[in-house]
Amino acid sequence: MKELKKLLDRIVQRVNINLRELGYDIEPFVHGLIPLNQLVKFYAFYGITPHHPLDFQFKHSNLSGSYFLGKCRVTNSLLYKSDIRGDELKQHGDMFRFKDLEILINQDEGIDIEDSFLIKTLVHNYSHDPETLEKFFIKDTLSTHYANIHGSPSAGCFLGPFSTVDLTTIRDCVIGAYSYVQAGEISHLNIDPGTIWVRSPDSFNFLYRYSAEKLSNYIHFTPGASPKGLFMDFVEDRKKDFQRVFDVVNIESSRSVPSNSSLDRYAVIKPHTHIGENVLVAQRAYLQNSWLGKGSNAQENCYIINSRLDGNNVTAHGGKIIEADLGNDVFVGFNSFLRGCPDCRLIIGRESIIMPHTIIDIREPLTIPSSHIVWGLVTNQKELEVNSMPIKTFSTIDGLFSKGDMLFEGRGADFVSAFMNRIDHILKANGAYFNGTEHKGHAQKNQHISFNTIQPYPVGKLEGLYPTISIQP
Amino acid sequence: MKELKKLLDRIVQRVNINLRELGYDIEPFVHGLIPLNQLVKFYAFYGITPHHPLDFQFKHSNLSGSYFLGKCRVTNSLLYKSDIRGDELKQHGDMFRFKDLEILINQDEGIDIEDSFLIKTLVHNYSHDPETLEKFFIKDTLSTHYANIHGSPSAGCFLGPFSTVDLTTIRDCVIGAYSYVQAGEISHLNIDPGTIWVRSPDSFNFLYRYSAEKLSNYIHFTPGASPKGLFMDFVEDRKKDFQRVFDVVNIESSRSVPSNSSLDRYAVIKPHTHIGENVLVAQRAYLQNSWLGKGSNAQENCYIINSRLDGNNVTAHGGKIIEADLGNDVFVGFNSFLRGCPDCRLIIGRESIIMPHTIIDIREPLTIPSSHIVWGLVTNQKELEVNSMPIKTFSTIDGLFSKGDMLFEGRGADFVSAFMNRIDHILKANGAYFNGTEHKGHAQKNQHISFNTIQPYPVGKLEGLYPTISIQP
Repeated sequence: MKELKKLLDRIVQRVNINLRELGYDIEPFVHGLIPLNQLVKFYAFYGITPHHPLDFQFKHSNLSGSYFLGKCRVTNSLLYKSDIRGDELKQHGDMFRFKDLEILINQDEGIDIEDSFLIKTLVHNYSHDPETLEKFFIKDTLSTHYANIHGSPSAGCFLGPFSTVDLTTIRDCVIGAYSYVQAGEISHLNIDPGTIWVRSPDSFNFLYRYSAEKLSNYIHFTPGASPKGLFMDFVEDRKKDFQRVFDVVNIESSRSVPSNSSLDRYAVIKPHTHIGENVLVAQRAYLQNSWLGKGSNAQENCYIINSRLDGNNVTAHGGKIIEADLGNDVFVGFNSFLRGCPDCRLIIGRESIIMPHTIIDIREPLTIPSSHIVWGLVTNQKELEVNSMPIKTFSTIDGLFSKGDMLFEGRGADFVSAFMNRIDHILKANGAYFNGTEHKGHAQKNQHISFNTIQPYPVGKLEGLYPTISIQP
Repeated sequence: MKELKKLLDRIVQRVNINLRELGYDIEPFVHGLIPLNQLVKFYAFYGITPHHPLDFQFKHSNLSGSYFLGKCRVTNSLLYKSDIRGDELKQHGDMFRFKDLEILINQDEGIDIEDSFLIKTLVHNYSHDPETLEKFFIKDTLSTHYANIHGSPSAGCFLGPFSTVDLTTIRDCVIGAYSYVQAGEISHLNIDPGTIWVRSPDSFNFLYRYSAEKLSNYIHFTPGASPKGLFMDFVEDRKKDFQRVFDVVNIESSRSVPSNSSLDRYAVIKPHTHIGENVLVAQRAYLQNSWLGKGSNAQENCYIINSRLDGNNVTAHGGKIIEADLGNDVFVGFNSFLRGCPDCRLIIGRESIIMPHTIIDIREPLTIPSSHIVWGLVTNQKELEVNSMPIKTFSTIDGLFSKGDMLFEGRGADFVSAFMNRIDHILKANGAYFNGTEHKGHAQKNQHISFNTIQPYPVGKLEGLYPTISIQP
């Protein structure tokens, strides 16, 4: 275990060097956060399919629990039950459009994780930084429980639990717990917990910040302890349901799904769940007594419980939907937590957008009208009125605008259309629009994944480290 | 599956080219022998330990069910539920003694399988050919069900079911079903089924041949069909017991074994089995209601049922022991089939040697006295008398000697001492002599193996082929 310990120390030191200008020391947070023997205990796995560019290189790393998929190189790093996807990597010969420029991609894009420690962090690679089109790097970075690194190359950063960086290149930043940052390119920032920041330079800037006190019921992270709060309790309570799917090599599917849908063998599906056509259920998704209508997707780490999703619904990474009814085309963003109760259901009208990192947690019935956009913390009708707007009205904003704790600057129409395009891209990529011949997406392509498990050295000086592995077509 | 089919055709063609001088065509035997979709269905696995030189390279091959362990390269080959072990590979700096010569090993030995198809074949690498000390090759070779390639580099050969080549370099040979060949170096021979041939050039030559008619009850192999007979029925009947051990990723051991013994997680252990100290139970071993005394080993593909082995007993690859009581230091050679019955037990006295590929199949009680050597087919007391001798008497043979269907030429003392040394080496290598600090063997070293599973492309042109994989320390 000695080498593993040295590796962790090395990563912490490297992150700290990058964060020195912020005067930030991650050591107290990381110390004891994941006991090293946990890293030895779980195997890692990788999927291969004919649709992903196969190219893995693992060196001097621990990989426990990962999934990978596309081209990925991991060096001097610790991945703990993480998940990396390379299913939207740019390829040699692609043309990338950035504003007025057309940039030729002249080598296959790859994910490159170096000197980093990712804890239960989802990495998705749909990256947009024109400066680093062919290498999606995660370097000198430590991310904690249920963070999302989504299209966001990252160097020298520390990500708090349930935080998301999305389409943002981050350098030398601290991203607080449950913060969502989609901001192009940022460096040397210490983002407070619960900050929702969506910015498109020269176009718009959206900012909302959770009250620290209220957020701490849901998630708080202090040095010397694991992340705590309702979010952690919620996932911990359901952990044992995942046990079986990880213990069996070839799990026999307990249910049939339509031939144009795919249900990952590492998902948990509890009774009375309906999976419609063109539906993608990703690994580590948790479905219970719920209806997933045509074209819906349940992404990694999402939980859908006692709910109905009419169709074309996106439940992004880490989204949680409990006791709710969602109309067609409702979008639920990353790590949102939507919780009704049996006698106070949450109704969301069609085409509404629940922004990433939104908490709707009600004790009385609540209906969100159709075509609304919702953000921040909503526990009742009154808070809903403050933290939502008809999308149409939002589109008319031009200039500075504020509502409750939300501040907006720029063109609302651009903000709305960016969101709409994004949602459309997600549905398309996931196969919601497949018509039997055209528009295949993950729902259709992911049906034939073969899974491979790999293990670290079981004892000795290299205990917990994996051998050097290279896998190519 | 197209590529897989092409690969098989290519292998058949290459073996046939090598066998052209024997006028032998393997195609009718191989056609349909293993439906190609079976190759896609099973995953492969490899173990890693701190004690084995880690170096795997797999290229353009199917590997379903393998195990490997030491340095191994597989190219353009099909391995179907095979098992390869590299735990006695020579290493850089070793000195190899051959008669009066001392040969320095100047690079680590590796197993190199190319253009070959191995079906449920065990490969073990304790090779002795001074001409190929650093490369253990298996090339242009097709071996069938439950064959053993033991210390035997092989090129251009076809091995029948339950055949064994042992410490023999074979080139362009056909080895018939259930034949056992230990003969130094042979080429261009077509060995009839049921031939037991042990030769040490300039020293001795032992030859026994089963009656074709009697052998066919146990095993026969004709073109266009799978191998048939009692041996096949026996293993097929117990196949489902292995299902569970291959279906679960981390199997919890149902029993504790002494700290100086090891029980492979891919072995089947049925109730009322006792595992003593310094015992090695290898993968794919099957134990039921049996007693394994101190220092015993149960090697790959062996079955020990309703039997007692007092201690320091070797049950070599594929040995089967049913309703029998074996004294200390009894050796049971490769693929031997020893079957008593509940009211007619087979008793074998201490220090007896049951030669490889011996069949003892009784319907009345039978006792083999201690320190006897037994070969061939024995179904009653009378046949025992013909097919056995006191080891001491055997040692006095000098010149030509025959008994029943057995023919011996040379010095009996050399034959006996070669066997004795071999048995001693096996016990030592397997850890039978471990005293708590010294003489560690597989029983002690194999306790910490981590298993990794890999899978082929699930669909598409490359269906059934594995990606190119390289694994190094």
